[in-house]
Amino acid sequence: MNPQNFSLEKLARLVQGECVGQHDLQLAGLASLEHAAPQHLAFVNAEKYIDSAEQSKAGALIVTAALKEQIKSKQNFIVVANPYLAFAILTHVFEKKHTKTGIESTAQIDASAIISDSAYIGHYAVIGEHCVVGDETVIQSHCKIDDGVEIGKQCLIDSHVVLTGQCKLGDRVRIHANTVVGGEGFGFAPYQGKWHRIAQLGSVRIGNDVRIGSNCSIDRGALDDTILEDGVILDNLVQIAHNVKVGANTAMAAKCGIAGSTTIGKNCIFAGAVGVVGHINIADNVTVTGMSMVTKSISEAGSYSSGTPMLESLHWKRAAVRFKQLADVPLTQLMKKLDHMQSQVESLESTFKLRK
Amino acid sequence: MNPQNFSLEKLARLVQGECVGQHDLQLAGLASLEHAAPQHLAFVNAEKYIDSAEQSKAGALIVTAALKEQIKSKQNFIVVANPYLAFAILTHVFEKKHTKTGIESTAQIDASAIISDSAYIGHYAVIGEHCVVGDETVIQSHCKIDDGVEIGKQCLIDSHVVLTGQCKLGDRVRIHANTVVGGEGFGFAPYQGKWHRIAQLGSVRIGNDVRIGSNCSIDRGALDDTILEDGVILDNLVQIAHNVKVGANTAMAAKCGIAGSTTIGKNCIFAGAVGVVGHINIADNVTVTGMSMVTKSISEAGSYSSGTPMLESLHWKRAAVRFKQLADVPLTQLMKKLDHMQSQVESLESTFKLRK
Amino acid sequence: MNPQNFSLEKLARLVQGECVGQHDLQLAGLASLEHAAPQHLAFVNAEKYIDSAEQSKAGALIVTAALKEQIKSKQNFIVVANPYLAFAILTHVFEKKHTKTGIESTAQIDASAIISDSAYIGHYAVIGEHCVVGDETVIQSHCKIDDGVEIGKQCLIDSHVVLTGQCKLGDRVRIHANTVVGGEGFGFAPYQGKWHRIAQLGSVRIGNDVRIGSNCSIDRGALDDTILEDGVILDNLVQIAHNVKVGANTAMAAKCGIAGSTTIGKNCIFAGAVGVVGHINIADNVTVTGMSMVTKSISEAGSYSSGTPMLESLHWKRAAVRFKQLADVPLTQLMKKLDHMQSQVESLESTFKLRK
Repeated sequence: MNPQNFSLEKLARLVQGECVGQHDLQLAGLASLEHAAPQHLAFVNAEKYIDSAEQSKAGALIVTAALKEQIKSKQNFIVVANPYLAFAILTHVFEKKHTKTGIESTAQIDASAIISDSAYIGHYAVIGEHCVVGDETVIQSHCKIDDGVEIGKQCLIDSHVVLTGQCKLGDRVRIHANTVVGGEGFGFAPYQGKWHRIAQLGSVRIGNDVRIGSNCSIDRGALDDTILEDGVILDNLVQIAHNVKVGANTAMAAKCGIAGSTTIGKNCIFAGAVGVVGHINIADNVTVTGMSMVTKSISEAGSYSSGTPMLESLHWKRAAVRFKQLADVPLTQLMKKLDHMQSQVESLESTFKLRK
Repeated sequence: MNPQNFSLEKLARLVQGECVGQHDLQLAGLASLEHAAPQHLAFVNAEKYIDSAEQSKAGALIVTAALKEQIKSKQNFIVVANPYLAFAILTHVFEKKHTKTGIESTAQIDASAIISDSAYIGHYAVIGEHCVVGDETVIQSHCKIDDGVEIGKQCLIDSHVVLTGQCKLGDRVRIHANTVVGGEGFGFAPYQGKWHRIAQLGSVRIGNDVRIGSNCSIDRGALDDTILEDGVILDNLVQIAHNVKVGANTAMAAKCGIAGSTTIGKNCIFAGAVGVVGHINIADNVTVTGMSMVTKSISEAGSYSSGTPMLESLHWKRAAVRFKQLADVPLTQLMKKLDHMQSQVESLESTFKLRK
Repeated sequence: MNPQNFSLEKLARLVQGECVGQHDLQLAGLASLEHAAPQHLAFVNAEKYIDSAEQSKAGALIVTAALKEQIKSKQNFIVVANPYLAFAILTHVFEKKHTKTGIESTAQIDASAIISDSAYIGHYAVIGEHCVVGDETVIQSHCKIDDGVEIGKQCLIDSHVVLTGQCKLGDRVRIHANTVVGGEGFGFAPYQGKWHRIAQLGSVRIGNDVRIGSNCSIDRGALDDTILEDGVILDNLVQIAHNVKVGANTAMAAKCGIAGSTTIGKNCIFAGAVGVVGHINIADNVTVTGMSMVTKSISEAGSYSSGTPMLESLHWKRAAVRFKQLADVPLTQLMKKLDHMQSQVESLESTFKLRK
């Protein structure tokens, strides 16, 4: 972390907040309420954290005006409308920045590649024919940038990333370590009991401000391109198959997998390990809860789920056996039958009483 | 892509199809019906695509004889029995080929390794003691080929692949970027509250024409070998644990995971994210649908599934609560009870009527 | 494998077992009962393997005293209380050891890094500012050890591992190929329809004797650290999100995923592909069965499950439809209704009989 300190006033100004208390208080970093020391700034985002805030050793707190009134034992605040957003902004102040530019001596760069003077290329990177690397882009050690790949400005390509299949990246794209973009799509034609490989001729197009985690696989298209639109964010170990299209600002948590040729709308949120079958369409603003299996198109915004709730294993086993039996239990018919019998019984009862 | 053009006649000949229309039409590539331009060849595989074919700007179409009759507005065709297979074959014509041979100056190759003169070894590859690399095999940059690994002919080992555990690969094996073959199996003996590592002494044997995607982990066996037979194809992010055996021509989509010592038959198809427990046997010709959990052996060919269908989340929550309750609902007994009551009621009714 | 042979007596002594039969029998390695040859030692762990043991060609067997009595056709044994543990110990005798020390000429090591003289640094490794590598630690080729990372003694960091985010590793830590430790956590603040990245300022702390498989992602914390305590063992393709804490000696099989800020107790066992949501607590000694979705805290030790059992697909489809219907079937109310009707019917029957 940077050894540099910042005054409370300066930090308040950076998030356009109100500085309350000791304006020249020097702060060395951000911390959680629980682990903060007096040289740290922490944030309070909801009433349920007020107790923690009171007990925190943080030197100052980012709060809303309403929360400030309820925290009695503290004097130093940055008051903002959205403390979490202010915190998000200030993390960048304390983040260690990459400042090197230039090409490490051990990098192998094809003569036909165009590398911006303000870019950084790490040790043992290999950059192929006709590649383009934009201004202020950082390519960490051991990256493989294969022939024909183009990378925009201010991107971060972390160590051991492989960019291949002539993929094209926009600006401010961040790809974390050991991810593969542009690998061969899984396309095989079955014929006479064997699988015949379909060479993948499409590519991958990635918009601006896209973020891809570590150990992801984003395959090139078969004929057309696989597409991640602007602002898409993907966590680690995500699989995006050939010819998938992911709409702008859609977020996927770790271990999601999207099968081939599926189109996903804008502003969707997929929780962890969601699986989506191929060749379907998901509308904009769809939320899918964790580990759900999406087996058909979703045309309406909303929240979708599948799976069963976690149970103690013995309880689960009994329920699971009954799930199997369900196949032979005509539930709706059963309900009707029950209602019908109810009427029969009531009719019998009343007639009976009448005749007494 | 290759800048080279091919005549319609030549392409038809390559797939043993009939050339219809302008025989010398020059085609620059394959494309989807939707994105094709006049210099492109597209394929039509089913009647449902006839409208798209009519509207396509493709210069020529790969079709069956029956489909050709129904596409009125086009003149140039390659007529074959299986358009998808013909397309698969032609993708290879337009694929950019790797043509370099030899060893890049930066590769580190142990003196005892045997590398074919027609092989290619990329930058920063590291090849250990007693390794063997066959004719026309391409090993891309940064690969780690550990001691004792043997690779057959015409293989592609993409960037950052790690081959270790003395694994042996057949011919025409393709392994995509950042995959690890021969890593240590997850074997630990629990004793006195701690895990004691079992050194893994087996290896991995991979047959001919096997394809492994990116970011896969194929572990070496504990004592015996982990085995992928000829023609097995695996998508990305697949886990194959120690001592698994996968039968010939079995296909697994992305994110499948097979636990230790399980044997899978030939010609199986596992959709995405299927999980299979350890120490079981799966017969030949078994299909498992996406995200299924296979918890016991399968002795009959057929299709198998688990999970619950995707629902709107509020609907799902109600169903999920009921799943939990199912544990205490004796469904089959309930059905019998209902039937029995039905008889009782009917008996009451009829007796009642008789006595009126 | 080592070409060295060991006498039965010597091997027995290494596991503090009783040597029975030909004490000077020379053994070249361990093998499974099925594949053992006369120069191999195999182990028998349960009565169900006695037949295999009788048929095995193994030169000697590791057994309990009780099992030895039942195996009539063999003469050479190592008799121990726990044959599996003895086998685990002996795998290390036959494992090929890494013996090289020193720094390969192609490694790039920052002048400020402190590397033990007894450590080994492989080809093309890149080690940044102020890193520390302890005694007898092996760092294989192509590793990226980023600025400020500290690694203890006798660790194994396999090829293409990326250690970043200033992570700190204890002693005897083993990390397998292509894993990323300390990558950026998936933290974004949503604001005005876009995702604003939260720079991750925490780190990862890994205790002693931790084992991490290949292709794993262990993210650095947002403010506080992500923690793996002593003795944790993780299989391949595991995701540990930012600020997760995993208690000592907990084991996770391949493809598990733990979302952010979740705390997992000691001595837990998660089977393959278990998913755990963020911000919950799991008690010590919790077992979770394969592919389960853990959506809330678990406060009691025990075994937990979710999902549905595998069924033949047509059977499954019927059950799945009924699962959907369950949402509108008030099961417990239905049971009560049925019981109530039963009483009504019985009451009718008896009154009826009385009045006959």
